[in-house]
Amino acid sequence: MNMQEIAIKAKDASIKLSALSGEMKNRALENVAKKLQERKNEIIEANREDLLRSEKENLAAPLLKRLKFDESKIADVIDGIKSLISLPDPVGKTISSTELDEGLELYRVTCPIGVIGIIFESRPDALVQISTLCLKSGNSVLLKGGSEARETNRILAKIIEDATIEAGMPQGWISQIETRSDVSEMLKMDGYIDLIIPRGSNEFVRHIMNNSKIPVMGHADGICHCYVEEDADIDMAVKIVTDSKTQYVAVCNAAETLLVNEKIAGDFLPAVKQQLDKKGVEIRGCEKVQGIIDTKAATMDDWATEYLDYILSVKIVKNMDEAIEHINRYGSGHTDAIITKDKNKAASFLSLVDSGNVFWNCSTRFSDGFRYGFGAEVGISTSKIHARGPVGLDGLIIYKYKLIGNGHIVDDYSTHVKTFKHKKTHKNFPI
Amino acid sequence: MNMQEIAIKAKDASIKLSALSGEMKNRALENVAKKLQERKNEIIEANREDLLRSEKENLAAPLLKRLKFDESKIADVIDGIKSLISLPDPVGKTISSTELDEGLELYRVTCPIGVIGIIFESRPDALVQISTLCLKSGNSVLLKGGSEARETNRILAKIIEDATIEAGMPQGWISQIETRSDVSEMLKMDGYIDLIIPRGSNEFVRHIMNNSKIPVMGHADGICHCYVEEDADIDMAVKIVTDSKTQYVAVCNAAETLLVNEKIAGDFLPAVKQQLDKKGVEIRGCEKVQGIIDTKAATMDDWATEYLDYILSVKIVKNMDEAIEHINRYGSGHTDAIITKDKNKAASFLSLVDSGNVFWNCSTRFSDGFRYGFGAEVGISTSKIHARGPVGLDGLIIYKYKLIGNGHIVDDYSTHVKTFKHKKTHKNFPI
Repeated sequence: MNMQEIAIKAKDASIKLSALSGEMKNRALENVAKKLQERKNEIIEANREDLLRSEKENLAAPLLKRLKFDESKIADVIDGIKSLISLPDPVGKTISSTELDEGLELYRVTCPIGVIGIIFESRPDALVQISTLCLKSGNSVLLKGGSEARETNRILAKIIEDATIEAGMPQGWISQIETRSDVSEMLKMDGYIDLIIPRGSNEFVRHIMNNSKIPVMGHADGICHCYVEEDADIDMAVKIVTDSKTQYVAVCNAAETLLVNEKIAGDFLPAVKQQLDKKGVEIRGCEKVQGIIDTKAATMDDWATEYLDYILSVKIVKNMDEAIEHINRYGSGHTDAIITKDKNKAASFLSLVDSGNVFWNCSTRFSDGFRYGFGAEVGISTSKIHARGPVGLDGLIIYKYKLIGNGHIVDDYSTHVKTFKHKKTHKNFPI
Repeated sequence: MNMQEIAIKAKDASIKLSALSGEMKNRALENVAKKLQERKNEIIEANREDLLRSEKENLAAPLLKRLKFDESKIADVIDGIKSLISLPDPVGKTISSTELDEGLELYRVTCPIGVIGIIFESRPDALVQISTLCLKSGNSVLLKGGSEARETNRILAKIIEDATIEAGMPQGWISQIETRSDVSEMLKMDGYIDLIIPRGSNEFVRHIMNNSKIPVMGHADGICHCYVEEDADIDMAVKIVTDSKTQYVAVCNAAETLLVNEKIAGDFLPAVKQQLDKKGVEIRGCEKVQGIIDTKAATMDDWATEYLDYILSVKIVKNMDEAIEHINRYGSGHTDAIITKDKNKAASFLSLVDSGNVFWNCSTRFSDGFRYGFGAEVGISTSKIHARGPVGLDGLIIYKYKLIGNGHIVDDYSTHVKTFKHKKTHKNFPI
């Protein structure tokens, strides 16, 4: 099949999928869990091939680690599927209901989005998580995984497809695509694909965002900030900044820039430097920072750079307003934290910083679907519509309006034979 | 100011606007209502200029009618503002709350989207409705109205700007742009503008959708269907089809195609033809239709055409599945209705038709923000994410995650010193 045929099949399947009951979808998920368990040796064998090939190709050690998909990883994804099964069906929930007039009832009811195209990095567990999230939410999915994980992804997609079709899911609801040219084709399928979720390098995500008419949910940069207000508890601030920067540097929710109120800088900077030095963090400071601690010089570029490394840019600001302005200018709308004892200042910061995740007195590293308790996430969004921050099941859901009448026509209302009641009811969609 | 300066000012203003209380915004809306009343003669005078010029330029009569903005229209928009004031503030509502761990509380809280660019057709009341909806929801707005209404739009935008700035709204939250080249510039401002809502001709909306990286909410086509099932009440079906087609033909929610189950076609088609003939509707039928009633022949193009005129394409289908397939292939995801006595068939149709508005036994013409009881609408969306169908205040709202801690760091959880509770609470955001 070519890309268009795959997309058309996915669209057709999505219509059928949207009408399936939660029980049907859960049975399919149960079968996936069962088959993953039964066929785990095949998976491990395929993964061994990927690991061997990637080692030969000198894939970096951290990537090799992410690529590894062993018995314990398989157990993890099976656990994930089981907790997904325990969640309520997100489809068919009545969000609101209005009696427009006697016998004319409007319901806003949740439904799947349709067809989701997902492009993701090396970890094979992402394939299982994402496709099961799509199934639970009733969406068809087109998957493009990293080529390092080619064999593992193939067997995983095959097992999921077989197990779900066997359990009555429609043919074509899940497809794997493998080549870059297929991805280019996919980005043109705005007639069939409703949403693209890219997970990969910044350049790659930006490339996707710039090259498709299909809506894209995701994030390119993660330029996260910590701001230390003048009244901050210095020990707490040191702890939070160190965790935000160093707990795991290669991820989007790691802090890249530290902003410090000038009134606390003299006390705070030497203290935080001591901890950051221990972790091997290179500090790039503005001129004022360099007057207090010994650091490299930060340039304008540093404020707009996501290092994803043991590097932190540091700037002294006059007050919180300047910090907020800096964050809204140079940040990426991902995650930003303030450390302060002052509740009103915190409230103001959380309101005025225009980011999907805004934190008071805790580490930026918390912005993550698992830590937020979503079970699994399809990604983190920095867009301003539809869904922001970590996106779980409900980012894959939308709604439609269902109107039930009994021969009602608009002419009766425009000629004032009848008038609207618009009475809010609290009823579930009845049919 | 050039377009970029306008957009930057709007972005800066949106940050301030997002933190204003509902009372502040309502006071500004009250002042708008007051000033529109006080300065109504200026408005009527400006509108007279537009009407005179447009008459000279031979603007079509229906468009002249929409352009007219007299005392009663002014009273209408003032009423609209008053009902908007009575609505609760959509910003700052806690959607969900979770205790991640002791002292670490996550809140999902509504907030404005940011900067909205709106391009709309001739009716000047749209300017007032849209800008007051944006104000109530805390969004900055860039407005481009139709050139026919130039003078009316100028005075209206000026009054709204003056009245709101006087009431303490931030400078730059509202700007009017007037030229086509400014629109082209606006579409490039994806760094500052978060959402574009175009309201105009199909070609125009499609042009916007194809020429901006900014998310676009709206609809190009409105190819709406009525499907008459075999068991339909024929009188009811005739009434609904006639209303859907003829109640107002020049609008997106008018029916363009009628699908009829073959088992009822012999009885139904002559009956509906009689009514449609009375209204002067040209019928274009498939071959089977032509075997029952005397009509022009429909071509393949007819199924994909939005006539916006007294023309209806009619097709006989074998069963509901074929109707649903036709609608999902040729429809525009706007509004589609089934006429049937069978509850199960209705439920299935409403579930399987992939449109924002799906109706049982009532006219397609009901899909409208006013009829739905939203008070006002910014437009109707056929996109699959963020908002579908008629979009009122809540389509201008998104959310952010606010996390409150007390020195919490992720390292404690990854080293298993602490574990997450993920306890759903039902608390409002406390600060």
